Amino acid sequence: MSRTAAALIIGNEVLTGKVQEQNVQVLAQTLFELGIEFRACRVCLDIEADIVSDVRALSQKYDFVFTSGGVGPTHDDITLSSVAKALGRGIERHEAIVSRLREYHGEDLTEAHLRMADLPQGARLLQSGKLSWPAIQVENVFVLPGVPKAFRWKLETIAAHLREDSAESFTSLRVYTLSEEALLAPLLDELDAKYVDVNIGSYVRWDHPNYKVMISFDGSETDTLTAAAEEFRSRLPADKLVPNEVAEATEE
Amino acid sequence: MSRTAAALIIGNEVLTGKVQEQNVQVLAQTLFELGIEFRACRVCLDIEADIVSDVRALSQKYDFVFTSGGVGPTHDDITLSSVAKALGRGIERHEAIVSRLREYHGEDLTEAHLRMADLPQGARLLQSGKLSWPAIQVENVFVLPGVPKAFRWKLETIAAHLREDSAESFTSLRVYTLSEEALLAPLLDELDAKYVDVNIGSYVRWDHPNYKVMISFDGSETDTLTAAAEEFRSRLPADKLVPNEVAEATEE
Repeated sequence: MSRTAAALIIGNEVLTGKVQEQNVQVLAQTLFELGIEFRACRVCLDIEADIVSDVRALSQKYDFVFTSGGVGPTHDDITLSSVAKALGRGIERHEAIVSRLREYHGEDLTEAHLRMADLPQGARLLQSGKLSWPAIQVENVFVLPGVPKAFRWKLETIAAHLREDSAESFTSLRVYTLSEEALLAPLLDELDAKYVDVNIGSYVRWDHPNYKVMISFDGSETDTLTAAAEEFRSRLPADKLVPNEVAEATEE
Repeated sequence: MSRTAAALIIGNEVLTGKVQEQNVQVLAQTLFELGIEFRACRVCLDIEADIVSDVRALSQKYDFVFTSGGVGPTHDDITLSSVAKALGRGIERHEAIVSRLREYHGEDLTEAHLRMADLPQGARLLQSGKLSWPAIQVENVFVLPGVPKAFRWKLETIAAHLREDSAESFTSLRVYTLSEEALLAPLLDELDAKYVDVNIGSYVRWDHPNYKVMISFDGSETDTLTAAAEEFRSRLPADKLVPNEVAEATEE
């Protein structure tokens, strides 16, 4: 059984359309490589009741939860206190973080900065040489910042911790075709029933110059994946097959 | 009271990191313009039980639900049957859609194409001149395709229907600064308490050449928004203020 994960993106900026969310794809790719199944993602507003109920639901249902956003020093940064509440924990000022803030800001240190040292009780700090700031873990919840560059850095640290325990990883094979999707449907139905451990996906592209549909074969057993992809490829009319080099050369 | 909305993005391709999700931002911007509060978004896998439970939860809690993805002719396209199940409805083959498919595909029409005419009982078809295919509404759930161009087209049709009933719309004012976020925090706390109808957001940019933090003032009452933004602007040191033209000229 794969381990499972979910994400909670906390941010009015996403739900009001101010920014294009960027962290989910990075997280998805990282989890895929780690062989952790990314089962669900939610986006919520900066509202305590919403964050609390989402964190609670996801942390009970999945092995890991990753949150993004709401960890800065301003009034709308309520993720840490909401995570504490969701998990039935209090908040305590973390002395290791206070010293780090004091070191960094010196005399300019304000009460707003110190808010960032208020962590859920029992929070674990995940360190890495590259980071000036630790990633924060509370039970099975990893709390990450929303700024994409910072999110990436912390995710790398967390991934290194998770990789140590990782038994398997997922692989994805792709076949590109010029066929119309509806004409592929019967064959895909058949392969989907035959290769039960392979997750087969079908994705239409309206605007790609070189192919019409991409079929993906995902899973952890490379032999079975290869067999499924090869059977699909061999049963496709030769003139409908687009070599991967050709299709992927023109991907952005 | 604003009307509320939620979205459900159905797609393994997002949670396995194969594609960058693009429909949420378009939906968010459209809802913002319509004055409908976008309260929650979820992303799930192509798994019937997950889609059913998410659609049911969201359709009970919010005024409108928008789904994206899973409406094509292949084995992984299970959105319509899952929406039917979530709402306790059966499936019926829709004759208006069958004729349209027959017209379009002629002799090439297959059973896989016809699957696309199997809609939840009582589904409403929303038409527009521009679309060759109607947008589908079942109770308060709008079912849209995942392909971004198709999503946009259908959303325009739906927005036209929703706009007719719309009483108010939201506005967003922005102020850009060179201040450090923690130093702004006390002033933002104060304004947040004073202007209760204004939603104030604070967004750090690490890599922008011209500003460090963008403060947004969102809401439906333009006078109050303007007052809040002006008070913030006037209380900021003049050398920390970045004119909007300068900040936005270098936005992508």
